[in-house]
Amino acid sequence: MHLNELRKDYLLDRWVVIATQRKRRPTDFVRSKVSSRKKRAICPFCPGNENMTPPAILVYVKKNGKIIKDKDSNGLRHSRWLVRCIPNLYPAFTWFPEEKMEIKRKDIAKFKSLPAIGHHEVIIESPNHYEHPSVANVNQLKLVIEAYIDRFKDLSSKKYVTYVSIFRNHGSEAGASLSHAHTQIITTPIMPRIVREELEKAKAYHNKTGKCIFCNIIEKEEKCNRLIWKNENFIVFAPWASTHPFEFWIFPKRHQPTILDMNKKEIRDLAITVRKCLGGLKNLLNDPPYNFGFHMVPDVSFHWHIEVYPKLSIWAGFEKSTGVFINIFSPEEAASSLREALKKEN
Amino acid sequence: MHLNELRKDYLLDRWVVIATQRKRRPTDFVRSKVSSRKKRAICPFCPGNENMTPPAILVYVKKNGKIIKDKDSNGLRHSRWLVRCIPNLYPAFTWFPEEKMEIKRKDIAKFKSLPAIGHHEVIIESPNHYEHPSVANVNQLKLVIEAYIDRFKDLSSKKYVTYVSIFRNHGSEAGASLSHAHTQIITTPIMPRIVREELEKAKAYHNKTGKCIFCNIIEKEEKCNRLIWKNENFIVFAPWASTHPFEFWIFPKRHQPTILDMNKKEIRDLAITVRKCLGGLKNLLNDPPYNFGFHMVPDVSFHWHIEVYPKLSIWAGFEKSTGVFINIFSPEEAASSLREALKKEN
Repeated sequence: MHLNELRKDYLLDRWVVIATQRKRRPTDFVRSKVSSRKKRAICPFCPGNENMTPPAILVYVKKNGKIIKDKDSNGLRHSRWLVRCIPNLYPAFTWFPEEKMEIKRKDIAKFKSLPAIGHHEVIIESPNHYEHPSVANVNQLKLVIEAYIDRFKDLSSKKYVTYVSIFRNHGSEAGASLSHAHTQIITTPIMPRIVREELEKAKAYHNKTGKCIFCNIIEKEEKCNRLIWKNENFIVFAPWASTHPFEFWIFPKRHQPTILDMNKKEIRDLAITVRKCLGGLKNLLNDPPYNFGFHMVPDVSFHWHIEVYPKLSIWAGFEKSTGVFINIFSPEEAASSLREALKKEN
Repeated sequence: MHLNELRKDYLLDRWVVIATQRKRRPTDFVRSKVSSRKKRAICPFCPGNENMTPPAILVYVKKNGKIIKDKDSNGLRHSRWLVRCIPNLYPAFTWFPEEKMEIKRKDIAKFKSLPAIGHHEVIIESPNHYEHPSVANVNQLKLVIEAYIDRFKDLSSKKYVTYVSIFRNHGSEAGASLSHAHTQIITTPIMPRIVREELEKAKAYHNKTGKCIFCNIIEKEEKCNRLIWKNENFIVFAPWASTHPFEFWIFPKRHQPTILDMNKKEIRDLAITVRKCLGGLKNLLNDPPYNFGFHMVPDVSFHWHIEVYPKLSIWAGFEKSTGVFINIFSPEEAASSLREALKKEN
């Protein structure tokens, strides 16, 4: 008789049933067709269509063999760009410098509410529609990471910004409404729950021991069968209490709170790591939809990382009403398949 | 210029952006086709196929005009049943009376783990494949609720059970693998996070004031434009910080911790309420997929309720990595459309 295992996340009050009762193989998760990567007739993110988007906040342009950082101005758009960052046309969070940031609503009940002040941006990762990180040129991916760093630096310095979330949706099933390679950035005036919980645990551990709790996790996972890949500066593993089949997390080995702390070699190694892991995932499961999100906080106790969630199952009534998850594929088996798949990547 | 609103849940540390920047109408959420309600060639839940499932733990059978409660035994299955409750063939949680409940695994890292001890059951709601609550006969739905009560009573009395979750997945996009009308029950040895957070807040409020915090919420929502429907014993509203478009919650008006506290009139009124609300949702949005889950705890401070989450949008990288949600349709507009739709229900 088979008994499943209930695992708690490293830091969060988040329990996951690793439900391997019905034995599955990685091939059970391979999609027979990829329906959602089709390009629209006119892609607003493709070169030539820059006027379909708001002016760029940041644009990397190649001039005389050098990469120049600029922005669109006076209603003119840069053509011949390498990476473009623009405001989201339908932002979840907004900021109007000249207006009063006030919501005028009458609610008899007076429950808690705040104006959704902040920014919502899109980083167009390449002029090439299909240059997703899984297939990208490493030099291009380095530019994308540099754009993350530039935007994170600017946004996190604003006094009304409490948190900067950098995330990516790949495939329409994972919520990507446009198929051109892009990342999104949202800033929030509140500290998001998941990050806050991680931060609280990290702070408490740091106060008690003077050490980083994430460094401790990395050290353990490096010796476990959930390890997927590592290079000089990065380590990738399937987390102990993965909430998604084939979930993996990417950590810098050196302790650092945010991506602002990376040196040049680390930026390059991160590009290689992201390319390798997302490339391996693509080849293993036929380009599955996925989401990823950065966790980073400029606090000495924090250690930034990327969490990648392949979208291969559905969170249903149990998950949504309880906050407990069922994962039908074990992290150990996911790591084993991904390790093999990564060997085939350049 | 439009500024969105960030709302906090009544009790949970859960923030939602009510993102109404891109104006939407209810018709934007109507699905053009319903692809997922098709019956398989052979449905294991349909009458005549009882041998395809494990023996029933509980079965309601009509005998001489009366409804008898029994179970399957000696390898024989009741035919002519009205409601059947069976163990899930692929349970997330299991219990073996004669075996040691121990997981033998070696993990060098020693992160937190528990055996997934418990039960995972299915309540087949009707012999009629298509008798979903949105279209069910109220008398049949009363039987389903009575089965919830019977199973909740039995399961919650077991000493290794900390929480009993009753939930329903409707439509394949919401995680229903079989289209025959059914509900699931899972028991967990831990208190799920979301329920624990609600319970802690309810207990603290009760200790301080001697009152129920949910009664307080109901009283406020009854006067607001999020109210959808009420009868003598139940009230239905779109919650202030809905995480899903068209989300609604069903509460008994009288303070009661679990469904075991309902009287006969309340059971009937609940059947009418569920029929009415899910029927209205079905007609408004062309039978959308949805999930629902009960929250109930046998504690004097708690007030049970049902949370219904229509599945009309995707939780993507931002939601998954932060725990902050974006809802693209306001609860007030959802309530207004649902109110109208409910008027057309019998």
